Formats: sequence, structure tokens, C-alpha cells
Amino acid sequence: MNDSHFLHGFLNPKSVAIYGANNKGNSLAGLQIMNLIKSSYDGKVYPIHLKLPSVMGFKAYKNISNLPEIPELVVIVLPSNVVPQIFRECGEKGVKRIVLISGGFRELVDDRKNSLTEEINNISNEYGIRFIGPNCLGVYNNWYGPEDEKKSFNIFIWENLKRSKFSIASQSGTLSCHIWYDPENLDLGLSRSLSVGNEANVDIVDCLEYYKDDEYTEIIGLYIEEIKRGKKFLELAKEITPKKPIIAIYVGGSKAGNRALQSHTGALAGNSKIYNGLFKETGIIKTDYVQEFLDIAFIFSKGIIPKGKRLGIITNSGGPGAMVANNAENHGLIVPEFSESLQKELKSALPLTASFKNPVDCTFDMDLPYFYITLPEILMKSGEIDAIIQYGVVGFQEVLDEYLKYDQIAKHAEFHHQPDEFVDTLVQKLLQPTMKNCQKYSIPILYINPMNFNAPWSKKLRKNGAMLFTLWDRPVNALAKVCEYVDYKQKRK
Amino acid sequence: MNDSHFLHGFLNPKSVAIYGANNKGNSLAGLQIMNLIKSSYDGKVYPIHLKLPSVMGFKAYKNISNLPEIPELVVIVLPSNVVPQIFRECGEKGVKRIVLISGGFRELVDDRKNSLTEEINNISNEYGIRFIGPNCLGVYNNWYGPEDEKKSFNIFIWENLKRSKFSIASQSGTLSCHIWYDPENLDLGLSRSLSVGNEANVDIVDCLEYYKDDEYTEIIGLYIEEIKRGKKFLELAKEITPKKPIIAIYVGGSKAGNRALQSHTGALAGNSKIYNGLFKETGIIKTDYVQEFLDIAFIFSKGIIPKGKRLGIITNSGGPGAMVANNAENHGLIVPEFSESLQKELKSALPLTASFKNPVDCTFDMDLPYFYITLPEILMKSGEIDAIIQYGVVGFQEVLDEYLKYDQIAKHAEFHHQPDEFVDTLVQKLLQPTMKNCQKYSIPILYINPMNFNAPWSKKLRKNGAMLFTLWDRPVNALAKVCEYVDYKQKRK
Repeated sequence: MNDSHFLHGFLNPKSVAIYGANNKGNSLAGLQIMNLIKSSYDGKVYPIHLKLPSVMGFKAYKNISNLPEIPELVVIVLPSNVVPQIFRECGEKGVKRIVLISGGFRELVDDRKNSLTEEINNISNEYGIRFIGPNCLGVYNNWYGPEDEKKSFNIFIWENLKRSKFSIASQSGTLSCHIWYDPENLDLGLSRSLSVGNEANVDIVDCLEYYKDDEYTEIIGLYIEEIKRGKKFLELAKEITPKKPIIAIYVGGSKAGNRALQSHTGALAGNSKIYNGLFKETGIIKTDYVQEFLDIAFIFSKGIIPKGKRLGIITNSGGPGAMVANNAENHGLIVPEFSESLQKELKSALPLTASFKNPVDCTFDMDLPYFYITLPEILMKSGEIDAIIQYGVVGFQEVLDEYLKYDQIAKHAEFHHQPDEFVDTLVQKLLQPTMKNCQKYSIPILYINPMNFNAPWSKKLRKNGAMLFTLWDRPVNALAKVCEYVDYKQKRK
Repeated sequence: MNDSHFLHGFLNPKSVAIYGANNKGNSLAGLQIMNLIKSSYDGKVYPIHLKLPSVMGFKAYKNISNLPEIPELVVIVLPSNVVPQIFRECGEKGVKRIVLISGGFRELVDDRKNSLTEEINNISNEYGIRFIGPNCLGVYNNWYGPEDEKKSFNIFIWENLKRSKFSIASQSGTLSCHIWYDPENLDLGLSRSLSVGNEANVDIVDCLEYYKDDEYTEIIGLYIEEIKRGKKFLELAKEITPKKPIIAIYVGGSKAGNRALQSHTGALAGNSKIYNGLFKETGIIKTDYVQEFLDIAFIFSKGIIPKGKRLGIITNSGGPGAMVANNAENHGLIVPEFSESLQKELKSALPLTASFKNPVDCTFDMDLPYFYITLPEILMKSGEIDAIIQYGVVGFQEVLDEYLKYDQIAKHAEFHHQPDEFVDTLVQKLLQPTMKNCQKYSIPILYINPMNFNAPWSKKLRKNGAMLFTLWDRPVNALAKVCEYVDYKQKRK
């Protein structure tokens, strides 16, 4: 447990005051107070507003000094010029934690001397305040009240996300909260998220320190434009990665990238070589792509980590099999040719036109239990592979149902619609033994169904625990990075 | 027009006989005859079956000799050992075109001498037959009857796809037809598709030759495991790429990839360096990823081709802006710092906290006409950029609607649900002037909305012609490849 870490209070406040809160939809502070309602937050909410008597049904206060208690957290969404004054008022009230959403500090050309930042830093030192921001979006805790799945402390995420043990610390607000708009896009879920903005007081290193001993964090995602305390970061990362994977996006190094950073968080121009070296040394998984960032976290979140980098490929089509094999090897995975005994075992069970050397291509085969259960089990038992990519888990019944809409077909076809319950049971029967085997052998299967991620069959597979992708590019690249990390861990043992 | 090319008849037959056709759902030939029905094919259909009197409502024939006419196309889906006999029967009947779906030829270890392939080649030579395959999935023509959008000649695609001028030739069946399962995943559409399989008779070079002068083909997609006629391929590609872009996936080069090819189409081990050189010399756009293959084609399919590689970035969030800038430069695009006059123009119109050097980051700005119309127009008019990536075109009304589901919010909120017609009109107003400007300046905008591709706002944007992506990785990489091609074309002028 890490209740004692100062960030714990930022994520678990029993009361929160919001400067700028209002009843509008097109204002950040309006959205934030609505998120508290939406996420069933049951602490006290104190809007602070000069004119409104109440905001979203909560009694409003003109000034923090009028509040009946010292709020455990203060959120500020007002223009930067009034922020020093608010900080001082908060200090006088006894406030110890502030989330400073407002932009307009060092990222502005006009404040290159950071005089405003210096001012609020001085005030917070004077009163013993810790603050997150400025120029951030806030904090999120999906385990606020662990016993009640619906409850979270959320001021910045627009959707209801499922719980997981993936936690984020990010110098970009968007990367901390706006990449999951629709959970239908992804099965990853989220634990905590901390948008640190310009890092005038709290930085990514603080977040790492907190996540290190956090029982609700097993995978850490970072978005980095600049690391301010390099030595401490290095120490912490080295300590964490043997236990919890860290996935990092680092932006910087290119001319355009550096220019973008300067006007974003005011970060100084970075050198991507130095960062790449740092990541390599500490076993941090680096990616340039937000989708890959999520995919890698997704693989880890399923909890079945491969023991090595040998990939078995099961497919019912040669092209995707060949592309997976080719890309896998080019990204550092090993696609071993199977031993003669394993080839023999596979050959005896496969159709004549199938291939069995790896990839295993069973062509247009309709024997579902064989495809979903037997084949993966043979591979897992063999001891010759560490992970499986399986292409072709399509919702064939949906395809047939489409044909049945045509009278001429419906009249003559020797097949018919299967009731949903039948398909439900079928998917369950096909997947459950294999999911157990994945656990037993610690061999993950990355499934691919080129149909829509939310097509009926896809949904059923996902519901039964399948790690599902829609095309075959992403799983290869993400798995390769997972296996690189596994390699790093093993070499350090 | 290229009616005279021998492949024209394969795509526009007035009659087709199918060996192996049946009423089953789990058989290739069953699916094929159903596709003919589903795609409103109005030619004659002759199932050939030893026992069934009719198939899917079409009168069946025991033998091709009994058919009342010479079918313009014959499709064979029967085991390889009976194929030579069928070829001979077809020859005797006077058939000139066969699509040979059956596998079990040179890709099998047992037929490394290709004796079966040799046999059918000899027979087809004897009778003047051209055939596609073996080991393929068939052909597709989305312009069979150009006047009727619903009509196509389709034996292998399971969905109804929209028409476009993107045509495919592929040595993988899946790559030729099973990457669009659900058109909801993609707005690309399809024109023709030719699955060439083992290429015993018709090869990818024939397809290129056909697509070269085909009025319904403006973008060509290839999946290649092996090129049999290298010299002719080179000649044709050089002739085509100045007019029509060719996008190619080449698989091979890695050990595992080569092994996969051998058991897939029987292709010989390839050397990726030779192929990369070939592609570079001919201006073929090469990719290793099926998603990128589709994305590149998608950008071309919109018909607005950038004139150079200078990228303008519009965003309402710093992180995605910085990532786009960084990845763009790393992939060969130029992200120019705007001229002082352009910066001045932007600065005067943007909020205080915004940045305007490129990326243009307008932060959490709610002025939609400015974001959707004015900003892109300022960039286009400036002459300083050739393409735009715009992050943040979110469906904010949908987000607000979600909040309104909570009583406490609905009771106090100063905003309300907007009727669908209002939103429809809004999107139309926001997009149409910009779509016109894209045409006028020949500057494409690649929009990004991290919400689901089929969320209401996304759907409306797409309906109004927007080129939409869900995250910011793919558009950068695909655009970089499009611009490389533009560069190739300009250098050859």
C-alpha cells in the first residue's frame, strides 16, 4: 500500500472545491463538475463562483474562506492572472493539494521568464501546498471505493471506463484521458491517470514513485516531452521495470517535434538518442504510436506474459500467415520451423492442402473445435513456442445470416439461422478450454477477426476473454515489444 | 477502354458455370453461387453437379457438355485430381476462360515437380484456354453494369461494397477479398479484384496490363509473394505509376516469411532488397502493413492529391499535435515553421493560450466555424503547406447528451440535446466550404476523431466527404507514403 505517498490524497479526496465551476457544457470546469456526478463521486463538492448561488445542484461559495471545511483537493480552472491570488487564499484556508488546470504559464512566449510560475511556486512553498499542473487536465482514479465498480474519482474522462490495473502519467492532457472516448474501441480499461501538464510542482517522477508501490497499478503508461529529474527517473525506472512494465511515448528530437513541445508544455528541445538510451537501459518499452501504446498495455493487461519470443502462427489463409511471419521476424520475434515430430502430429490432423511448418495454415477449414481448441493446444503442449497469433476467428454465422436475407437463397439453402443463445454457448465452448490453456502454459493468443471489432462474434469472443484485433499488423508489432521487455527482464535475472 | 484485353471477359461474363456448386453454407462453391445472387448478377448461372437437379434455384447440369451454350466463364471448386479431366471437358465444349479455385497444386510438398500444373497448362494450351489460379479465390467486378450501382459480378466478397476506382491484384485470396468484411470499418470501396493464386497461367503482370488502360481503375493495389515476369513487370510499372499510383505489399525476405510463401502459393524464396529496389525505381509505394495499404489507397481515392510534402497541423490538443509533428518529420514530411505574416494572421484570431507556429494548437476552443472553416482556409491560402492533418473533430454534442442522462445534470445544465437534423445541418455547414477549398487548392485534410469510427458525429463527417481516422498514427504514415509518390512523379517530369 502507498497511502502515505502525497499523491494518494490527490486521487482519493473526500472533498473537492472547484474554482470556475459552472452549469455550461462548453467549459472545462463545467465538464469537470459533471464528471464528478457521472462517476458517482460521494465526497463533498464545493463549487466556487462569484455570482451563482449553486452549480449543478451543489451549493456554491463566493470564496474559499466561506467553506465549512478545508477541502482535501482544490481544482482551479480560471485565467492564469488570478491564480496567484487564489493560491494565497487556498494557503490561508489550509488547503494542501491543488490541481491547476489553467494554461497560460511557461508555455506562453510572453512568460519565458516563468515569472507567474515562480510566483505560484513561492506561494505553495510558503503554505506547504503540492500542486499538479499548470496546463493540465486533472486526475482520475477508477478505484475510488474499490468495492463499488461504478464509483470513481474522475474530473476529466468523458466516458465510463472499465477498471483495470493500467495507470498513466502524462505531460499531455489528451494522452491522459481522451484516447478511450468509446470503450467499444478497446478492451483495455484504466486504473489511475495523472495529467501533469507543465510540471511546475508535481512531475512524472513523483507519479512513478507513487505507481511503484500502488496495488492498483500493474502496468504504467507514460507520455513524456521532457524529464526534469533524470537521475531519479533512471533509479525509479530500474527499480520498477523488473516488476511492472513501463510503456513510454517520448516526443521530441525532430525539429518540428521540439517546436511543438515548446508551445505545448514549454519543454526544452530534447535529444531522442539520449532518451532512447535511457529507455533501453531501464527496460522501458518505447513507442512512437498511441495505438501501439494502447496495444502493448492491452496485452499486458490480460496477465498472460510469454516466456520467450518464439511465435506460433495459426491461420486459415496463407497471405495473412505469411505477412505475420515476415513482420514478426523483421521485428525481432522468432518464428521457428516446427520439429519433425510436431509437424507430423499436425499433418495427421490437418486437411490435405494445409501447411504445418509454422505458420500452420488450415485453409478454409470449418472444424471449429479443432481450430479453436485442438490446434492451439497442440502448439502449447509442444514447448516449441511462447505466444500464438491466430488469424481467421470470423463470425461466419453472421455472414450466413446476411445471405439468408435473399429469398432465392433462403428458399434453397441447406443451412439456417442459429439462435443467439446457440452461438453464445458455441463461443463459450470454443474459447474456455483454450483460455485455461493460455493460463496453464503462460502462452497468450492474439486473435484476429477482420470483421468489425463490435460485430456479434467479435463481441462474444471478447466477452469470453479473447485478446482480439481486427487486422494482423498491430498484434505483431505490439507483441514484439512485449517480448523485448520479457527478454530484458530475463537478462537481468 | 480495354474491352479487348483478355481479362475483360473474366470480369464481365454473360454466363458462368460452377463446378462443385451446392446449397451448403460451409463450402466455397456454395458461397460463390450465393454471392452471384447477392450481387444481383443477371447473367446465366449453370451449376454443374453430378446428383443435384438444381442448386440455389438454378437448374443444375451433370456435365458441361449438356449446357445449352458455351459459358463465358467456368469456375472450378473441386479436388485437384479431377481438374485435368474437367479442363479437357471444358476445352471440348469450347470454354475459353476458367477460374480455378482448387488448391493442391504446386504449393503442396507432394507436387514439387508440378506435374499436375504442367498437365493443366498443356490442356489449356491445346484448347486456347486462359485460366486464373489454381489456389485462388476468384474475381470481382464492382462495375458490372456501370449504370446500376447494386449490380456487380462477384463470386468471392461476402459484403456489399461501395464502388470506387481502387482495383486489386493479389497472390493472396484474403488480401483480395476479406479485408473489408464490414464496410463500416473503412470508406475505401472497391472497383475490381483479381485473386491470382499460384499464377499457373494468368499472373499479376497480366492484371497490371489490364488495369493500365482500365477506366474504372485509378489506384492499383498489389499483394506480391513472387514476380514471375520481372522485366515486363518493370516496364509496365514504369508506364503506369506516372498516371495511376500502385501500392504494393511484398512478403518475403525473412526466413519465416519465405517458408510461409513456399507452403502458400509455392513461391520461391525472395530477396526483399531486390524487390525494394524494384519498387523504388518504378515509383511503386511499398508497405508491410495491410492497414497502411488500405489507408494509402483511401487517401488517393478521395482524389485530392497534395502537390508537395509540407504538412500543416491543426489541433486542439498539444500532445497529439506534437506526436503528429514528430512522426511526420521522422517519416519524411516537412512541418514548416510558418512565416511571420502567417503567424501574425493566426495569432490575431486565436485564443491567448493557443500556439500558431505549426502545429496550430487552438486548445479547448469551441468556435466551430473557426476551427472547421476559417483556420484550414487561412493555411490553404497561405501557400505554405500541401496537406493538413486536423486533430480534434469530436462529436461534442454526443458527449453532452451522455451527461444529460443524469438527472442532477439535466436539471441544472444550461445546455440541452440538439435534434439530429440540427446536427446534420451543422456538420454540413462546417464541412462543405472546406471540402470545396480542398478541391480548389488541391490540399487534402486528414481529420482525426478519437471517438468510434461509427459514432454519430464521425458518420456525419464521413457522409460529407471528410477523410476520417480515429487516431493520429495512421494518417501521418499513410500521408508520408502518398507524398513520397508525389515526389517521385515530380522528379520524373
